[in-house]
Amino acid sequence: MGASGFQVAPWELRWCGLDLDALARNESIFALSNGHLGLRGTLEEGEPVGLSGTYLNGFYETRALPYAEVGFGYPEQGQTVVNVTDGKIIRLLAEDEPMDLRYGHTEAHERVLDFRSGTLRRDTIWTSPTGRRVRIRSERLVSFTERAVAAIRYVVEPLDDDLELVVQSDLLANEPSSAKPGDPRRAAALDQPLIAEHHVAADLGAVLVHHTRRSGLRMAAGMNHELEVRDPPRCSVHAEDDLARVAIAADVGLGDRLCVTKFLAYGWSGRRSAPALRAQVEAALAAGMEIGWAGLLARQREYLDDFWAQADIELDGDPELQQAVRFAMFHVLQAGARGEARAIPAKGLTGPGYDGHAFWDTETYVLPVLTYTMPVAAGDALRWRHSTLDRARRRAAELGQSGAMFPWRSINGDEASGYWPTATAAVHVNADIADATARYLTATRDEEFETDCGVELLVETARLWASLGHHESDGFRIDGVTGPDEYSALADNNLYTNLLARRNLREAAAACRRRPDVARRLRVDSEELSRWHDAADAMVIPYNAELGVHEQSEGFTRYARWDFDATPPEDYPLLLHYPYFDLYRLQVVKQADLVLAMYLCPNAFDPEQRSRDFAYYEALTVRDSSLSAGVQAILAAEIGDLCLAFDYFAEAALTDLRDLHHDVDAGLHLAALASTWLGCVAGFGGFRAHDDHPAFSPRLPDALTGLSFRILWRTSRIAVDVTPATTTYRLLAGDPLPIAHHGEHHKLTDTPLTLDNPPPPSPPSITQPPGRAPGPRG
Amino acid sequence: MGASGFQVAPWELRWCGLDLDALARNESIFALSNGHLGLRGTLEEGEPVGLSGTYLNGFYETRALPYAEVGFGYPEQGQTVVNVTDGKIIRLLAEDEPMDLRYGHTEAHERVLDFRSGTLRRDTIWTSPTGRRVRIRSERLVSFTERAVAAIRYVVEPLDDDLELVVQSDLLANEPSSAKPGDPRRAAALDQPLIAEHHVAADLGAVLVHHTRRSGLRMAAGMNHELEVRDPPRCSVHAEDDLARVAIAADVGLGDRLCVTKFLAYGWSGRRSAPALRAQVEAALAAGMEIGWAGLLARQREYLDDFWAQADIELDGDPELQQAVRFAMFHVLQAGARGEARAIPAKGLTGPGYDGHAFWDTETYVLPVLTYTMPVAAGDALRWRHSTLDRARRRAAELGQSGAMFPWRSINGDEASGYWPTATAAVHVNADIADATARYLTATRDEEFETDCGVELLVETARLWASLGHHESDGFRIDGVTGPDEYSALADNNLYTNLLARRNLREAAAACRRRPDVARRLRVDSEELSRWHDAADAMVIPYNAELGVHEQSEGFTRYARWDFDATPPEDYPLLLHYPYFDLYRLQVVKQADLVLAMYLCPNAFDPEQRSRDFAYYEALTVRDSSLSAGVQAILAAEIGDLCLAFDYFAEAALTDLRDLHHDVDAGLHLAALASTWLGCVAGFGGFRAHDDHPAFSPRLPDALTGLSFRILWRTSRIAVDVTPATTTYRLLAGDPLPIAHHGEHHKLTDTPLTLDNPPPPSPPSITQPPGRAPGPRG
Repeated sequence: MGASGFQVAPWELRWCGLDLDALARNESIFALSNGHLGLRGTLEEGEPVGLSGTYLNGFYETRALPYAEVGFGYPEQGQTVVNVTDGKIIRLLAEDEPMDLRYGHTEAHERVLDFRSGTLRRDTIWTSPTGRRVRIRSERLVSFTERAVAAIRYVVEPLDDDLELVVQSDLLANEPSSAKPGDPRRAAALDQPLIAEHHVAADLGAVLVHHTRRSGLRMAAGMNHELEVRDPPRCSVHAEDDLARVAIAADVGLGDRLCVTKFLAYGWSGRRSAPALRAQVEAALAAGMEIGWAGLLARQREYLDDFWAQADIELDGDPELQQAVRFAMFHVLQAGARGEARAIPAKGLTGPGYDGHAFWDTETYVLPVLTYTMPVAAGDALRWRHSTLDRARRRAAELGQSGAMFPWRSINGDEASGYWPTATAAVHVNADIADATARYLTATRDEEFETDCGVELLVETARLWASLGHHESDGFRIDGVTGPDEYSALADNNLYTNLLARRNLREAAAACRRRPDVARRLRVDSEELSRWHDAADAMVIPYNAELGVHEQSEGFTRYARWDFDATPPEDYPLLLHYPYFDLYRLQVVKQADLVLAMYLCPNAFDPEQRSRDFAYYEALTVRDSSLSAGVQAILAAEIGDLCLAFDYFAEAALTDLRDLHHDVDAGLHLAALASTWLGCVAGFGGFRAHDDHPAFSPRLPDALTGLSFRILWRTSRIAVDVTPATTTYRLLAGDPLPIAHHGEHHKLTDTPLTLDNPPPPSPPSITQPPGRAPGPRG
Repeated sequence: MGASGFQVAPWELRWCGLDLDALARNESIFALSNGHLGLRGTLEEGEPVGLSGTYLNGFYETRALPYAEVGFGYPEQGQTVVNVTDGKIIRLLAEDEPMDLRYGHTEAHERVLDFRSGTLRRDTIWTSPTGRRVRIRSERLVSFTERAVAAIRYVVEPLDDDLELVVQSDLLANEPSSAKPGDPRRAAALDQPLIAEHHVAADLGAVLVHHTRRSGLRMAAGMNHELEVRDPPRCSVHAEDDLARVAIAADVGLGDRLCVTKFLAYGWSGRRSAPALRAQVEAALAAGMEIGWAGLLARQREYLDDFWAQADIELDGDPELQQAVRFAMFHVLQAGARGEARAIPAKGLTGPGYDGHAFWDTETYVLPVLTYTMPVAAGDALRWRHSTLDRARRRAAELGQSGAMFPWRSINGDEASGYWPTATAAVHVNADIADATARYLTATRDEEFETDCGVELLVETARLWASLGHHESDGFRIDGVTGPDEYSALADNNLYTNLLARRNLREAAAACRRRPDVARRLRVDSEELSRWHDAADAMVIPYNAELGVHEQSEGFTRYARWDFDATPPEDYPLLLHYPYFDLYRLQVVKQADLVLAMYLCPNAFDPEQRSRDFAYYEALTVRDSSLSAGVQAILAAEIGDLCLAFDYFAEAALTDLRDLHHDVDAGLHLAALASTWLGCVAGFGGFRAHDDHPAFSPRLPDALTGLSFRILWRTSRIAVDVTPATTTYRLLAGDPLPIAHHGEHHKLTDTPLTLDNPPPPSPPSITQPPGRAPGPRG
């Protein structure tokens, strides 16, 4: 068993026994989703429960954002993800005793998330308080192929005697919430968010239709059942406003079993009527039942086989991390697979954390993974951004800027942050979107996307920079903004922002030159192009010549250092124990900022400079954000400290499995999960995308004996197999292509290419703030 | 009549006619207060009313401060001034018709605020809808000598016929509020803040006792009456939870009159019981009635005669401004006279604006006036600050700092701001308190205050600076703070803050050397003293050598300039039309910041530099704050642009009378009123306080033919009479003393000293943002 409590295995995640304290955390970890519909991994019997949750991507309620003192341009309304009608519930009564693991005796209880079948299985042997012994097995899936459909196969066997079993299979709306108050990273609790509109029940099926009170969205949930049991059961069905229930009573003999297959379908819309939504879910249910449980299972496996063939990472030498990497990729897939022009929230659909909002993390952490493993999902996520462009243009106009200003956090594209210094002012989100767009275009050459969305995303964000910045004697300045490090705010010339804005301006200009037709449609003229070039060329890059390091922002290196020695371990994360006032004005870094810029804009730093900068910021970085470790791993690998890189990589990979930030109960950290892939591919694989070829600089830490990963590059599929001494590149499909290996150019054809890995550069001496070094793994 | 609608007269302010639109504004302007008890100038009959208000200094209710996203150290509770039991109401019925100026016919109606009697008089001739014609005269005062007492003399005469008159004289608690929502400068509306605890009525008197729901404060209001009328009236008295009423019915013949004198008394406490408070107001009532109306009037006039003898400013050449100056001084007196170790709120006790909070304005604008005209009131206000030191020390500790951090806005000493970037981060308030303390000590040599409060205030604020700042290669830096200009925030090395902190550190060290006994008590050792000196000596003073100007904060002069040409007049004040995000990152100045530093720390600037700096910041200053014009007047005078100085002075003086900021309805701007005195004395009089002598550099603008003012300096009282060519100094009382006149040193003895005024320096060319120049007056 790993230190996380999960058994170590290459293709599954298994938890044995019931741990009430780990309940909510494990519900997030065992959540199933296809990017459209998400079910938290609650037990079928409904209780004990940590935090029940069923989510439909894009389905939210609005809430007034309160301010002690209002200001112009503050968003008045926020959005909060809604826990919609719960269809996961299958209650069991054995001879009238409700099955509840908190009572009676649990002889065996385990749950398995299977990365290849795409299902969550349970197996429980339980004896009721009066001595009835039963075995309960279930398996559930949220279908990757039928995006509105989920299904649960639920099997009960009496183990000692014949038993009368009653199964109550529910649709339950407006479940009581159990949110913990007080932590800003958590969600606003919504009380009874759904208003009943329609309910219908017949035979073994039912549909409930609800709408939200304020956001005006409507949703329907439907269920139907198939039963397998020897003697004909006695069934009833009932529906009311917030509950539909199919009750199945059966006398089940020893050696026999009751098997209930529950099919679920969900739909939502901001426009369609209740009858239309009912029809939609009934159609989805019928389709799901037509495919049947076995068919759904088979399609799920086939879908995942394809996915793993493209996206799997093999990692020799650390089985727990091998498992963690697949767990990460499985959840990245679950978050992105079928979002289809909806956002990918920071927590995917695994929990209500951050109110279900999507942030810049999606573009900067999740989309790189999807771009090279499942580009259609990356394109869809960017299409969501594009679909919100009008809102972003309105927001820019409201704030007196040109172009588009995308929201810091949002479900529907409107800004939903109530604290502007690290939200509205964190304008880098716009460059992050442009960066993801450019990356996607470079990797895919998706011309349809480029025509419809890509150029426009690049142009409107470039326009923002041209309007936000200005030329001064020291160059083109972007003042008063907030970079990725949330322990700084409203700084001048944040290096990350300036570098990414420069890339944004240049990529927009390049796109306009590439696609003059689209540029004309967007009214980009040559004068505007040259303004972008002038701004990019003159961009201020803050540097402290005395120290020989770049400045995270202008003047940052002259701030007093945080008194790390006086900061006890229990005071982390600092934001819960110190005021922003102090955090902002001192040298202390929450998360990779300049270090992230070094990864995203590698050409702006020469190797020696990179080492000095990395060492300088390592000593200041407390890693209070889950976005940090994976990026630190990449840079540590690049500067040659592979042991440190491995430690960071392990931390990123185990962020959720070990609940390192103590908030997995509210959902997984998609960016941290994605950064696990980045740590392998961009870190140990040294992968960087150049305009016309992928480049690799593979180097393994001592703890690993092998690393294999795959990359999609335009029409080509490449496998990279790294050993301590050599790297082998194979073209799995598609056209031959140029690649670079440690800076040398090669042509990859059908013949595998095996090349030596040069020794790493010698790293500088690196220290972290006391107590903030990653746990040693290597 | 002046452009403000008030008749111009030297010693009074008169408004003729009823203007419903000006009602709330005039209630603020006609408010009476002694610094302890304040009554807005509502009409006796209760309606029409703009915004009723009766305030007890320090009496507040708490309210939860809401945040869309919480942060460590955010205050959870704010305080809001309570409109307490209204005793001003005297309703009249003439033959059963309620007197209401909105009905019937008003033949004459005028109100006069008399600066020498300290009363508000009215005179109304009104005909009821059915033709009953009456004259109503009233006069009211809030006693300067009996601080718990107010009184109203109310006289009604039938003008055409004998009439049955009924007067209902009320105490009314929990009046409906009529606050306008949406403007952050206004108050939080409290609904029914008072909980009834006790009521008693007998004869012609009554007392109501209430407490607040959450803050746990208790208050009592009492009334009693004296009647003068030929035929014995029929009287009744009644009291219930929120109302006490004395009803007086009288048949009044033509030529006769009904005269009601209403005595009011108020008391509040956070500790005393309801019976104790009842007894307290009954005692105050008895004392007030013992003195009687005539006695109260006489004491009021005597008090004011003394005040004007010390504080009057005579100004020849502009009668409207002469009136405005006396109006200003009258209200400064009303705000400060009897606060007695309570805060002086930004609006005094004239309205609910800013929730009744006190800000740094008190120390930096109001206390200089009181220090030189009524030092006991200045000392009292600083004693209030001192009484909150424990809270300020706790706040500093909470935020990880040493010493004390005083609140940005408060009634009880706890921080009540819900927006930290321009509140908690505006740490200059601490230096402002130190500055006021040092000024008071220099001017008064008040040793008792120094022992009990002064040294400690200086030491605890100095400790804050030592902990907030740090030594770096460029000097002692104070990063990430907000200066007076609220269109910038979280800047590094705000010049105002650094200069005032330097003064704070040096004054604290000087006080400790002067008073080693107190220093020992406060555990100041020589090492700490030398740290303060080192910090002060190394203080960073941001300067742009290329432009030859000081920087408001580090880097400020490299920000893009606000696009003033694209800003239409209706977009001012900018904070209501543009986001802080943009305001903070551009060169645009809300209010004197660096310019205020030039006034408060004159030695940090040589004359040529001062001119360059003033010209630079003038072009950026939009004057969206009422704190600005008076200070700009001082600096304009100093650099020799007396015409501009006069325009600014006039704007400051007329801020409230002309309602230049469109919010006088919620209360007067005490700082702007105080800056009127500063404009005369520090501006045209060129007064600066040096350690051992007062210095003057008088110079009149062309529009003025004479200016006389007086200054208290330790034991001496000095009169300064300025004409265009000369200045005459007279010692009115006390010891001879050294003074400076335009830099030349003289000794002022009993012999008046008449000296020539040298010609002013020639000012640079000065422009303001388009449309933001002060209206021409000179």
